[in-house]
Amino acid sequence: MRTVNVALAERSYPIRIGGALLGQGELIASSLRTPRAAIVTNATVAPLYLSRLRDALAGAGVDLTEVVLPDGEAHKDWATLNLIFDGLLSARCERKTTLVALGGGVIGDMTGFAAATYQRGVPFIQIPTTLLSQVDSSVGGKTAINHPLGKNMIGAFYQPRLVVADIDTLQTLPDAELKAGLAEVIKYGLIRDLPFLEWLEAHMDALLARDTDALAYAVERSCVNKAEVVAADETEQGERATLNLGHTFGHAIEAGMGFGNWLHGEAVAAGTIMAAELSARLGYLDAAALSRVRRIFERAGLPVSGPKLGVERYIELMRHDKKVEDGKLRLILLESVGRAIIHDSAPMADIAASIETCCS
Amino acid sequence: MRTVNVALAERSYPIRIGGALLGQGELIASSLRTPRAAIVTNATVAPLYLSRLRDALAGAGVDLTEVVLPDGEAHKDWATLNLIFDGLLSARCERKTTLVALGGGVIGDMTGFAAATYQRGVPFIQIPTTLLSQVDSSVGGKTAINHPLGKNMIGAFYQPRLVVADIDTLQTLPDAELKAGLAEVIKYGLIRDLPFLEWLEAHMDALLARDTDALAYAVERSCVNKAEVVAADETEQGERATLNLGHTFGHAIEAGMGFGNWLHGEAVAAGTIMAAELSARLGYLDAAALSRVRRIFERAGLPVSGPKLGVERYIELMRHDKKVEDGKLRLILLESVGRAIIHDSAPMADIAASIETCCS
Repeated sequence: MRTVNVALAERSYPIRIGGALLGQGELIASSLRTPRAAIVTNATVAPLYLSRLRDALAGAGVDLTEVVLPDGEAHKDWATLNLIFDGLLSARCERKTTLVALGGGVIGDMTGFAAATYQRGVPFIQIPTTLLSQVDSSVGGKTAINHPLGKNMIGAFYQPRLVVADIDTLQTLPDAELKAGLAEVIKYGLIRDLPFLEWLEAHMDALLARDTDALAYAVERSCVNKAEVVAADETEQGERATLNLGHTFGHAIEAGMGFGNWLHGEAVAAGTIMAAELSARLGYLDAAALSRVRRIFERAGLPVSGPKLGVERYIELMRHDKKVEDGKLRLILLESVGRAIIHDSAPMADIAASIETCCS
Repeated sequence: MRTVNVALAERSYPIRIGGALLGQGELIASSLRTPRAAIVTNATVAPLYLSRLRDALAGAGVDLTEVVLPDGEAHKDWATLNLIFDGLLSARCERKTTLVALGGGVIGDMTGFAAATYQRGVPFIQIPTTLLSQVDSSVGGKTAINHPLGKNMIGAFYQPRLVVADIDTLQTLPDAELKAGLAEVIKYGLIRDLPFLEWLEAHMDALLARDTDALAYAVERSCVNKAEVVAADETEQGERATLNLGHTFGHAIEAGMGFGNWLHGEAVAAGTIMAAELSARLGYLDAAALSRVRRIFERAGLPVSGPKLGVERYIELMRHDKKVEDGKLRLILLESVGRAIIHDSAPMADIAASIETCCS
C-alpha cells in the first residue's frame, strides 16, 4: 500500500493507494469518529462493490446506513443531493456520523457537499472507484453540485479525513472512462512534472492494459502532484488554478455539446490541445513541443480536436465559466512542456484562432 | 458607533453598532473585495430599507445586483435559496462579488449559506435589521436552511467580513419580535454575564420603550458575549453549546406547534424556564434563583410556560434535535444564575417533571 499525505495543517489527511483495500474494514473504521457511517454510492457501483465494503465495515463493528443514488452527471443536482439528506435524517444520523463516498467523481462531489453541509459539517471519507476521481476529484476538497445555469456552481471546499484508492476497482471501469482519467494524469506531467510525463510516455501501453503496478504508480504520482499544489493554495487564490489546464476550453466543449455527451477527460484533452496551440501562438511552445503534447493524448486514445461549435459560441461559453475574473478570460497556458502559467491577457484573435485550428 | 471584534484569526471581523449606519456607504464599500455586491433582502424589509442602502452603496461607486425573497421562516428552504443562485448567475456574479444580507435571521442564514456555497464561497456582509439577528444569528457564522425533516439541518459555518447593526432599524420592528429578541439578550446574562443580567433588570423598561442608547448597549454587550464564546469554540465542540440554553426544549415547542406559530425567542423563553426548573430539581438553583429567572422573562413580556403538547411528545421532539449526540440528550442547565453548564445525564423522570411543571 502506498500513502500520499495531503498537508493542510489541522485538515491534513492520508490517501491510501493499493489493491484489495476495499475489504480492509479496519483501514476505514480506524478513521471514524464514532462507529457509525453512512455509505453513499450509485446504482452502477453498488452491485459491484457495496457488499464488499459493507461486509468489511460491519466486520469492524461499524453501524451502517446506505444511500444508493441514480448514476450520472445529470443527477448531480439538488434533488439528488436531497436524497442523501433524506436518508441521513430518516436514519437520524448525527454530527459525528461519517459519510463515506463510494464511487466516481459525481458521487464524491455530491457526498462531499452533503458532508460539508449536513448539520453544518460531518466527517467524510472518499473511496473513489474511477481513475478520474482517484487522481483528481478525491484530492483537494472541492465539492459541488450543478445548477441549471452552470456546472459545479454550488459547493464548498471541504476536506475528507481519509481517501482510499483501491486500484482493483479500475478493472471494471469502461475503456472510455479509463482513458478520460488519463487526461488528468497527463495534465500533471504537462503542468509541473516533466519526469512523470516521460514516465507516462514510456508506460502508456501498460496503463491502457490496466497493469496494476503501473496504475498504482500513476495514481500515486498524480496525487503527490495535486496534493503539493493544493497544500500551497487550498482555496485557489493562485497556483491551484494551473490544475485547470485545458479546462476553460474543455468546459465550453462540455457545455456546448450538452453535459454528459463528452466525458470530462475527453473535453480536457481537446481543451489542452487548444491551450497548447495558444501557447505556441504566443511564442511559448515550438512545433516539436506542440506535437509532443498532441502525441501523448493520441497515445492515450483521447480526442485532440474539439467539436465545431463555432468560435463565437466557444468564447461565449468560456466567459460563463466560473474561472472568469473581473470579466477577463484567465487561461492556463504552457510556458514549456512541464511548466504551466496563468495568463489573463491573451489577445482575443489568438484565442479564436487557436480554437479554430483545433476543431474538426 | 460602537465596535465589537470577533476574533477568529484570519476570519476575524468587526461588528459596527449604532444609529444611521445604513446610509454610510463607505463603511460597507470599504469592506468589499471588488466594487461589486449583491444585496439579498425580503419583501417586508425591501420597502423600508433597500433604497437607503442602495443609494448609499451606489454613491460609494458599488455596482449592485438585488434579490428580493418572500418573507418568513416558511421560505427558509432550498427553493428560495435557489432564487439567490438564479439571481447571482443571471447577473454573472463572480467569485469576488460580495453578498450583502439585509434583513432578519432568515435572510442572514440563507444569504450566508448562499455565500458559503456560491462558487464554493464568496465574501459576505451582514446587515441585520431585527434585534434577534443583531444579537444572535449575525455573530458566529452559523448559516443554514431548513429541511422538511428538521430545522437548520443543512448549512455551513461561514464568517462574514463585516456586520453592520443599525439600531434605527429596530424602530420599525413589531413588538412581538422585539420581545423575542430580548429572550436571547437575557440568555447571555443568564449563562455567563451576571452584571449584564443586573443591567437588564434595571433597564428593561427602556429597552421595551426602544431607547436607542439602551438598545445599542444591549446589542453591544450581547455581541461581546457571543463573540467571546464563538472565538473560543468556533464549530461548537464545547462551550459554544451553552448558547443553546433553553433551545432544546424550545425546539420541541417550535416543532410541536408547527414552525412559525411560536417565535423562536418565545420558545426559547419558555424553554429556558424548563431548563431552569430542571436545574432546580437537580439541586443547582434554589427557589429564589428560579423565580429571578422567571421574572426577567415576564418583565420582557415573554411566555414563561410552554404549550401542552404532552411530555412524551416533547421528549420525542427533543431527541430529534441536532444537538443530540450518541443518542444522549445533552442539555444546557444553569449551575447558578449567570453560569451555564453542559449536562448529559439528567434523569428522564426529572426532565419529564420539569416539562410537566412548565406547561399550561
